[in-house]
Amino acid sequence: MKRKQLRSELAWSTPDRIVVRGKDLPGEILGHLNLGDMAFLELTGRVPEPRESKVFNAMVVTLVEHGVTPSALVARLTYLGAPEAMQAAVAGGLLGLGSVFVGSMEGVAKLCAEAFAGGTPDIAAILTRYKRVPGLGHPLHKPDDPRTVRLFEIARETGFYGKYCRLMEDIARQTKLTLNATGAIGALACELGLDWRCVRGLGVMARAVGLVGHILEEARDPMAEEIWHRVDEEASSHQKPKR
Amino acid sequence: MKRKQLRSELAWSTPDRIVVRGKDLPGEILGHLNLGDMAFLELTGRVPEPRESKVFNAMVVTLVEHGVTPSALVARLTYLGAPEAMQAAVAGGLLGLGSVFVGSMEGVAKLCAEAFAGGTPDIAAILTRYKRVPGLGHPLHKPDDPRTVRLFEIARETGFYGKYCRLMEDIARQTKLTLNATGAIGALACELGLDWRCVRGLGVMARAVGLVGHILEEARDPMAEEIWHRVDEEASSHQKPKR
Amino acid sequence: MKRKQLRSELAWSTPDRIVVRGKDLPGEILGHLNLGDMAFLELTGRVPEPRESKVFNAMVVTLVEHGVTPSALVARLTYLGAPEAMQAAVAGGLLGLGSVFVGSMEGVAKLCAEAFAGGTPDIAAILTRYKRVPGLGHPLHKPDDPRTVRLFEIARETGFYGKYCRLMEDIARQTKLTLNATGAIGALACELGLDWRCVRGLGVMARAVGLVGHILEEARDPMAEEIWHRVDEEASSHQKPKR
Amino acid sequence: MKRKQLRSELAWSTPDRIVVRGKDLPGEILGHLNLGDMAFLELTGRVPEPRESKVFNAMVVTLVEHGVTPSALVARLTYLGAPEAMQAAVAGGLLGLGSVFVGSMEGVAKLCAEAFAGGTPDIAAILTRYKRVPGLGHPLHKPDDPRTVRLFEIARETGFYGKYCRLMEDIARQTKLTLNATGAIGALACELGLDWRCVRGLGVMARAVGLVGHILEEARDPMAEEIWHRVDEEASSHQKPKR
Repeated sequence: MKRKQLRSELAWSTPDRIVVRGKDLPGEILGHLNLGDMAFLELTGRVPEPRESKVFNAMVVTLVEHGVTPSALVARLTYLGAPEAMQAAVAGGLLGLGSVFVGSMEGVAKLCAEAFAGGTPDIAAILTRYKRVPGLGHPLHKPDDPRTVRLFEIARETGFYGKYCRLMEDIARQTKLTLNATGAIGALACELGLDWRCVRGLGVMARAVGLVGHILEEARDPMAEEIWHRVDEEASSHQKPKR
Repeated sequence: MKRKQLRSELAWSTPDRIVVRGKDLPGEILGHLNLGDMAFLELTGRVPEPRESKVFNAMVVTLVEHGVTPSALVARLTYLGAPEAMQAAVAGGLLGLGSVFVGSMEGVAKLCAEAFAGGTPDIAAILTRYKRVPGLGHPLHKPDDPRTVRLFEIARETGFYGKYCRLMEDIARQTKLTLNATGAIGALACELGLDWRCVRGLGVMARAVGLVGHILEEARDPMAEEIWHRVDEEASSHQKPKR
Repeated sequence: MKRKQLRSELAWSTPDRIVVRGKDLPGEILGHLNLGDMAFLELTGRVPEPRESKVFNAMVVTLVEHGVTPSALVARLTYLGAPEAMQAAVAGGLLGLGSVFVGSMEGVAKLCAEAFAGGTPDIAAILTRYKRVPGLGHPLHKPDDPRTVRLFEIARETGFYGKYCRLMEDIARQTKLTLNATGAIGALACELGLDWRCVRGLGVMARAVGLVGHILEEARDPMAEEIWHRVDEEASSHQKPKR
Repeated sequence: MKRKQLRSELAWSTPDRIVVRGKDLPGEILGHLNLGDMAFLELTGRVPEPRESKVFNAMVVTLVEHGVTPSALVARLTYLGAPEAMQAAVAGGLLGLGSVFVGSMEGVAKLCAEAFAGGTPDIAAILTRYKRVPGLGHPLHKPDDPRTVRLFEIARETGFYGKYCRLMEDIARQTKLTLNATGAIGALACELGLDWRCVRGLGVMARAVGLVGHILEEARDPMAEEIWHRVDEEASSHQKPKR
């Protein structure tokens, strides 16, 4: 059987050196890059310029904390059963970041990338193709998502408000739907030249940060056990024999 | 049944506002905090000072990328079977951050916190109590872990090199073992006043960032399938009938 | 806000009783149902007849063990880092059962269910609609998958070889592709009247069984660490400075 | 670097054969073994005798379904966000089977195995060593857990009620605590000669079966979204400005 060479360009180590993406980790990265910049380096292979750093950090920071979401509940309920394995509680919380919630960012980035593949985008064609355009609509934030407003403000300040942002705003206007934060972030990911295949990952890394916060709060002031007992009682009571 | 009130202090939203840890997300956080600062805010309830930001970001950035670790392999092998659910590939990669690898940071933070609970720490007693002191030893980086050297340099610059760092360095000297990066980070977490119950989480959030990088590289230049075929062939060949 | 009543029909308990799916767990289930029958009860609400039990158990047993698959590797590599949390190693191994591997069963069950929705199925239309028909093709087992042959033999013996099995065999014949085990199981799930939304779950529960076997073997005779070191060395060697 | 040979004894395949644990999968396993028997074969390398099959199947069947537990809630809340990846919802639900819930079985099996290592077990010494003996106590089932009563009845019928069962019953009597189902199953695992390192896995595989049932019910009659909205509203209301 012919063998394919295994290759990774991400890092290497020797006894006295650790090099990540071609940069000396202790000497060129630690103390120089913040966590968002490090994520940018991982995904693009280069250190962001200051204006890229500002937009990129704002994008991921937006997604860190949203209160007691399904994902936070999962982390807390998992921690209740396995407090010795908090990594599993964070991981559990990430598992639901699929097509319904955070995954829509990936769809927006793909839509944006494809829309310009053949020149000028055709919004009518896009609306025909998508039953539901990703990144649009929000159950609470109407008519505007305040995160989108602020992210596009930062994009304008830094020179990253471009054709992808405009496209998504045009689609939102035509459909009379709110351009939500995942829509703005998906568009900005294209403005920064990120590969759409890592865009869902921006939400995943951000939520990992937020879920650690939820687990710490759960450790100090728990709610998972109370939720369990309430739900179990309500959900099974109709089955139990009347006394 | 008496009910316990469910409470969270992390965030709230109304149609036009999103407030995280008491701060207006669009107005006071986006564009002002980087991802590491946001993590600090989540875990402590306050925005870090610049010198705290520098140490804290260096701590988490240290843990983002270590090459093709077991955790990166898990993410890549999971992505091979479920490319439509990259959040699950990241989550899978986090599951192994247990007692053997990243979890040792938690042990260091706990050791440090407990060592000073009764006044001056007694290293002889610590060495008796622990069969294996967490944060010590490294298979490759000897005699010094270059990350520890650099992290403590940053700690000195910012005024965070204190009694916890000294304790771990004293233990390392007495045991003639390398103080590895998880040992340095565990001690620095105490210097920053972080709760030991969230310290493993610093590694978890950092690796989530790095795993997105591995999945993107796997999407572009895969190795998981090749690894699978090689291992499966080698591991089962002794069982197969000779032809 | 209007509230929806939370309801579950799966189980209830009082201090001296535990009732699952309407049956007394100690008195009517334990000692009477095997694990496959219990799964059938969970999914359908009734105890299988002997011929249903035979087919259903054969279907799930087929999927338990396939050697050192990506899913088994994930479980072993996760166990390496967190041996104290073997539940997380099993869970990790399940995460890759997505669209590429086991998930195809779900696609087959859906295809079968939809094909007969409008009367006689139209194979030409099916082949037009699907770029790649799920359940067809196997890299190793050609021209026949021995599991499919045996499963359909059992289906004939028990009276469950019907229109869905015939449809999948017709499609395989026309496309000159192997009807693999997931194709056979997807069709049989329809013959048994199972909801397609639980069909992927048959593979998930079966693999959970197999993954416990892999973790036990890993605990006794490990391979994960060796795989890690080999891969890491090969994948990063081109980056390292020549001495 | 010296290389360790990778070896697995679990399965091998050629184009026309699939052999699991030394048995031809289509010819000797499918149609002959139920899912519980297959699990026994995976874990021990041999097909169970009928009386072993009866006890072992009863043990795992006991753990399949417990109503709306934290683990079921996690699966349902994960499915809400990622319905396209139900394997991740099952996996999420398994992550909480740690030290607090199902993991106690492992502790019981270990306690039993160690108690007889030096001859006759010394209950006073066991009670001194363990702050909290695993397998004892139940919040609802008192004074007896009906599953334990039934499992030991089956154990007596099949000749597997032995020294490990007696030890756990003696400890329960002395501590005046209920011997719960995980205590009974941990003891029975020792009676069957199972390795304690796979005992938690019995709970993990069983719950995987039950969680598929919960996800199917969630798909048909959801509760996750309602739980989320209720909890989020209650947990954050104190933070919101009064109107």
